[in-house]
Amino acid sequence: MSGSSAEDDLIARHFAPLAGAAGLGLRDDAALLQAPDGCDLVVTCDALVGGVHFFVDDPAGAIAKKALRVNLSDLAAKGAQPIGFLLALALPPKFDESQLVDFAHGLGEDARAFACPLVGGDTVSTPGPLTIAITAFGSVPHGRMIPRTGVQPGDLLHVTGSIGDAALGLEMRRRGEFLAASLDAATRNELLDRYLLPRPRLALQSALREFAHAAMDVSDGLIGDLSKMLRVSGLSARVRLADVPLSSAARALIAVEPDLCDLALTGGDDYEILVATPPGKTEAFARAAQAAGVAVSVIGEATADRHAPLFADAEGRARSFARGSYSHL
Amino acid sequence: MSGSSAEDDLIARHFAPLAGAAGLGLRDDAALLQAPDGCDLVVTCDALVGGVHFFVDDPAGAIAKKALRVNLSDLAAKGAQPIGFLLALALPPKFDESQLVDFAHGLGEDARAFACPLVGGDTVSTPGPLTIAITAFGSVPHGRMIPRTGVQPGDLLHVTGSIGDAALGLEMRRRGEFLAASLDAATRNELLDRYLLPRPRLALQSALREFAHAAMDVSDGLIGDLSKMLRVSGLSARVRLADVPLSSAARALIAVEPDLCDLALTGGDDYEILVATPPGKTEAFARAAQAAGVAVSVIGEATADRHAPLFADAEGRARSFARGSYSHL
Repeated sequence: MSGSSAEDDLIARHFAPLAGAAGLGLRDDAALLQAPDGCDLVVTCDALVGGVHFFVDDPAGAIAKKALRVNLSDLAAKGAQPIGFLLALALPPKFDESQLVDFAHGLGEDARAFACPLVGGDTVSTPGPLTIAITAFGSVPHGRMIPRTGVQPGDLLHVTGSIGDAALGLEMRRRGEFLAASLDAATRNELLDRYLLPRPRLALQSALREFAHAAMDVSDGLIGDLSKMLRVSGLSARVRLADVPLSSAARALIAVEPDLCDLALTGGDDYEILVATPPGKTEAFARAAQAAGVAVSVIGEATADRHAPLFADAEGRARSFARGSYSHL
Repeated sequence: MSGSSAEDDLIARHFAPLAGAAGLGLRDDAALLQAPDGCDLVVTCDALVGGVHFFVDDPAGAIAKKALRVNLSDLAAKGAQPIGFLLALALPPKFDESQLVDFAHGLGEDARAFACPLVGGDTVSTPGPLTIAITAFGSVPHGRMIPRTGVQPGDLLHVTGSIGDAALGLEMRRRGEFLAASLDAATRNELLDRYLLPRPRLALQSALREFAHAAMDVSDGLIGDLSKMLRVSGLSARVRLADVPLSSAARALIAVEPDLCDLALTGGDDYEILVATPPGKTEAFARAAQAAGVAVSVIGEATADRHAPLFADAEGRARSFARGSYSHL
């Protein structure tokens, strides 16, 4: 881990305690990494910017957790077991030491919870907003990374958990008291929390490795990401929107403001996993996911067409979406 | 490589052509990486911020090259052969497409020149300055990464190339016409270019692996970085400042303005390598470095003391430095 002299002090005080063995105490220019024998190393990189991907007044510990978790979500979608991560942190002048303590504390909690230690990085200053780029490493048995491009015609398309909560939580943050004033506090907090803290579906990794043809994490909206996965696989799909899983909190908010249904489907920050399984493996996959404690829902099937996926509403009418994908705050 | 829909288009147009095989065409959430059989994977991460680590009006292609090269310099110091890199890019609104084309073009030139392909990353928008975090991967034969912490008492301390050129080039940028007006254009350009474009000393890798106890890249000023390497090794050193290699361009500028000598020694952005070799291997190391086309100079020796390194000037007088390390622009 590197930085100037003042930055070295910060690193030593706040980040060195989070370092895994591969990080060499964060005292070197570089770290050493190795996937276990017989495994491939999977690497992914996601960056978050204050005012774009989080609110600058979010708690610093939650920002740190989000930055790590969006990367863990990518590893989860690839069927990979986390190994460690690098942190590139650009600190604005007004980010004070107490915030840095909170940031490091939150990061450390998640590094332990997900068994994914800090192995190195860089700390710099910026005149702009807090910016966090994390590179996360994971391992999969050799040749078993789940690709985005592997969808086959006839595959069933599943999605984990529930869709739209985070986008609705973000909309509540944006519109403040005016939105969802009639909802109870627990419902509101559930949506706000889904925006603040993604829940990477790492528990699904063995089910994915056993049964999935393809997977990706849903970070930029279900409609856009599903379209992307089919496009890179050279296929299309039929999707039943009524089968897209919505939480009771999302249903409650959409009942008050029905227009928000589209936002749930196209908004971002779900960090759920979209999975394609061969039809014969669907039940076995569903059982394995259930055993892992992850809800999965079938929302459609892949077809051997080249056009964009077809979306049907509850009455079977074709739906299209002006904005397939999401561009954050 | 990930990004929103608009960002995907940018990636496809400008960055996918730079992708190595491990990057899976930048169409997946993650990349697969592997060190060659019998090798360890070395990872390093350095971030650059506009207005901090480069001038926002520097050519975009040169900014891209600098961002990659500062990481390659870390790999060089570890005796590692580059394998590939991840790019996390935060783009300000005023960074237009022609600048992005230049950025990708410069990055591609260096990716080819250093045989270090793009394997993935993330592109996001920022209300702040252009921010580039690169994670670079390299390989070393198993167990042979050159550590920062391996200095032994009696080791000779070498530094590659010449020290201070980049810091002097930066000072010229800052002070404009007033500084160095009496110097010829070639001298001025040499110093400016050393600031703009680091020259990673990758050619030194086999000499380092064969002969070095310890090494680090000099990025935050020779005095500060040398002190850091000795401190993490639990040692001290005697250093002869008159033996620190200065280019003829640096000497010419210092002749005009003698006070700048300290800036050359403490300023940053050298991206040279500081190396500790056992005394019996010094000549063999020097020959191997010469064969690799990299100049090296002995500047002192490590001692079994715990105090800060001792610096002596040309007359043998002790020197101390108010500012051991450097904090960029």
